Amino acid sequence: MSQEIEVLEEVMERNTRLAREVNADLTRRGVFAVNLMGSPGSGKTTTLLRLIPLLGAPAFVIEGDIESDIDTRRMTAAGIRAVQINTGGACHLDSPLIAQAIPPDAKGYLFIENIGNLVCPAEFLIGEHIKVLIATLAEGSDKPYKYPLAFEKADAILLNKTDLLPHVDFDREYFTAGVRKLNPEAPLFPVSGKTGEGMATVAAWLEEKAKAVLAGEA
Amino acid sequence: MSQEIEVLEEVMERNTRLAREVNADLTRRGVFAVNLMGSPGSGKTTTLLRLIPLLGAPAFVIEGDIESDIDTRRMTAAGIRAVQINTGGACHLDSPLIAQAIPPDAKGYLFIENIGNLVCPAEFLIGEHIKVLIATLAEGSDKPYKYPLAFEKADAILLNKTDLLPHVDFDREYFTAGVRKLNPEAPLFPVSGKTGEGMATVAAWLEEKAKAVLAGEA
Repeated sequence: MSQEIEVLEEVMERNTRLAREVNADLTRRGVFAVNLMGSPGSGKTTTLLRLIPLLGAPAFVIEGDIESDIDTRRMTAAGIRAVQINTGGACHLDSPLIAQAIPPDAKGYLFIENIGNLVCPAEFLIGEHIKVLIATLAEGSDKPYKYPLAFEKADAILLNKTDLLPHVDFDREYFTAGVRKLNPEAPLFPVSGKTGEGMATVAAWLEEKAKAVLAGEA
Repeated sequence: MSQEIEVLEEVMERNTRLAREVNADLTRRGVFAVNLMGSPGSGKTTTLLRLIPLLGAPAFVIEGDIESDIDTRRMTAAGIRAVQINTGGACHLDSPLIAQAIPPDAKGYLFIENIGNLVCPAEFLIGEHIKVLIATLAEGSDKPYKYPLAFEKADAILLNKTDLLPHVDFDREYFTAGVRKLNPEAPLFPVSGKTGEGMATVAAWLEEKAKAVLAGEA
């Protein structure tokens, strides 16, 4: 088994090294990069479609999927610049894929929508300044306890599909306690991709965060 | 990169070899094994809690999670024998983990609830006779297009959370067309973990399938 572990460690190290280079380059160019993570169907694309028009700067989206260009077509139909990455089978994006996908004229915000997966994406840096995790009321309140790494590493957590509250069994207190055990500080934003509720608050937070990070204050 | 690929292929081959041994042993003992896959929060545990009491034979459950024993506690509270596997970080179960977890006195049905993940679990045999995939209305109708392998490999697909139909945007025709392109034959069962709708039909199908498979007819 030690050969396996060695090979995996090499892959991780190469990935982290390139991620740091990508991140430094984006910072130099004044581009703020967000690694957007969440389960399949958590509403990552819908959230971006809601958020981007609220931001005071242009945005570019890298859409990560195993297959299909459905999400990129949704973005471009809304007038948002986007490019698709298909991993074929890989369960997360990595920095070599991202390094090739960033356009030379990117400005403002770079949103990277990772593969829908609550496990693997949290393990790999891809050049981002912050990680944003989307969880949903439909997934149930025990997710932080079962998938701790994604919740631990998030710089902000969106609790999406608040419109479903009357129709699902969701224990908000239990969910929040699970999040806070892993991550005492990240803001937790209730949002609804369907109604748009809460999105303006997230957009305002993102703008402040981008300013602070790019100014070297956070 | 070729060293990486070689090492990964070795891991896959070892896994497949052991999975076939586990499967042959279960068949000999008359135990029917189901690999239950689905996204985080798709309702795998709730579905098992609904299905198992409807089956005419005892069942044993292996609960796979990154962390926590929440699901095993739910099973044992309902009087169902279960054991927990925590992978620590791994995004799927594998056959060495399963080989160790099967109790020597297992009888009837063995349900293996895989890690909540629509990507990795579909790639690894774990000794099962059939794979059952749970998708949900809340995840949206484009999932077969984005996560094809899980849909392609499933022997049955449960479309869960039908109770949410009035409250979500779900295009059943688009979903079904996506499934059928990948998998023309697997039965597609609409179910609700919340209300129990459709579960009796699934249980009856499972009983027929178990009989046929263990008799060497399927």
